[in-house]
Amino acid sequence: MKTQLDTFVIRSFRKQEMINITPDVIEAARGAAIRNGFLGVFSQHTTAVVLVNEFQSALLSDIGDFLKRIVEDGLPYKHNSPEWSDCDRSNATSHLRSLLFSNGVMLPVADGTPVLGQFQSVILAELDGPRERTLKVQFLGV
Amino acid sequence: MKTQLDTFVIRSFRKQEMINITPDVIEAARGAAIRNGFLGVFSQHTTAVVLVNEFQSALLSDIGDFLKRIVEDGLPYKHNSPEWSDCDRSNATSHLRSLLFSNGVMLPVADGTPVLGQFQSVILAELDGPRERTLKVQFLGV
Amino acid sequence: MKTQLDTFVIRSFRKQEMINITPDVIEAARGAAIRNGFLGVFSQHTTAVVLVNEFQSALLSDIGDFLKRIVEDGLPYKHNSPEWSDCDRSNATSHLRSLLFSNGVMLPVADGTPVLGQFQSVILAELDGPRERTLKVQFLGV
Repeated sequence: MKTQLDTFVIRSFRKQEMINITPDVIEAARGAAIRNGFLGVFSQHTTAVVLVNEFQSALLSDIGDFLKRIVEDGLPYKHNSPEWSDCDRSNATSHLRSLLFSNGVMLPVADGTPVLGQFQSVILAELDGPRERTLKVQFLGV
Repeated sequence: MKTQLDTFVIRSFRKQEMINITPDVIEAARGAAIRNGFLGVFSQHTTAVVLVNEFQSALLSDIGDFLKRIVEDGLPYKHNSPEWSDCDRSNATSHLRSLLFSNGVMLPVADGTPVLGQFQSVILAELDGPRERTLKVQFLGV
Repeated sequence: MKTQLDTFVIRSFRKQEMINITPDVIEAARGAAIRNGFLGVFSQHTTAVVLVNEFQSALLSDIGDFLKRIVEDGLPYKHNSPEWSDCDRSNATSHLRSLLFSNGVMLPVADGTPVLGQFQSVILAELDGPRERTLKVQFLGV
């Protein structure tokens, strides 16, 4: 049984941005100490998340609109108020949008390859960019 | 340490349908090479997800209504527009509803049994059926 | 390769409450049989979930408001109706709010410590308290 922890550092360029990290995950799996088991990709942040869905520009635009519809800008969020919070980024909506996802994504690994369906991509969802983001990638298996 | 990857193929019969796969997961765990560790159940699709909640018909009906309320049909989604997308299923709402969940579910395995609370079921949520769906079930442990 | 399954029992005191369990998770990891691998923290309930985000009181208040905005009280939920359901807690909104999260959270473990970013806390979100809640914590690694 072997374990390996990699670090991805990824730069985003917009406030809200979907970044396809599938090639990075496949490459990391190819070079990993395990051939079969699990890998997990974990955001180290509270306003950027990792998800799996189709990476298609029309859909990504719909996702962006959906996140803005479901978590409205302009409400009197306490996290954005100097009376209640010492956070100077006014990023309550980024936190709330990130809540709809998870801190990370687990995937099976088979013969050194992440097991993904035909239309599945691993996506870093930047919800409060532009920023440099750190992801941890944990492998465990044989 | 042992690893095992199973495949479930499950047919759905409606556009939106909740399918209780707890018995399948329990049976797979009973026959698995591991007795203790983790199992993960992973959808191979971007419009069908796996979740854990109570499998009660009144609640499942409320969940269906909630998904339609939170992701409205009839908006001008780009993913449904031939101008922007070559997807001919017009299933933007199915993708957006799937975003509220995760691609898979992890569970502990103890003595060959998935560790679930009294009211917890493992549910395949079909969000763009009817279809044949593939799930991957990964075991890792001792 | 080693595996270990711990149990946390945690009492909540309000209907909706965010409880910081990061110190418990760190302490469990420090004493665990593994040094490197994965840990998973799993709710055994369908109206209480585990999530990772920033544990800041202003933000937690915003999260509480958001959950009430996105899943409204007072709709004619079937799960709350004696005609459709034998559940006497009238807690449909608690189930629906829990759907926005996952049953559990996975984390890498490195040198006996859960790998978390600077602002990440592991949070038990009570959505139908006050209650006594059981979490299962599974370790797998070397």
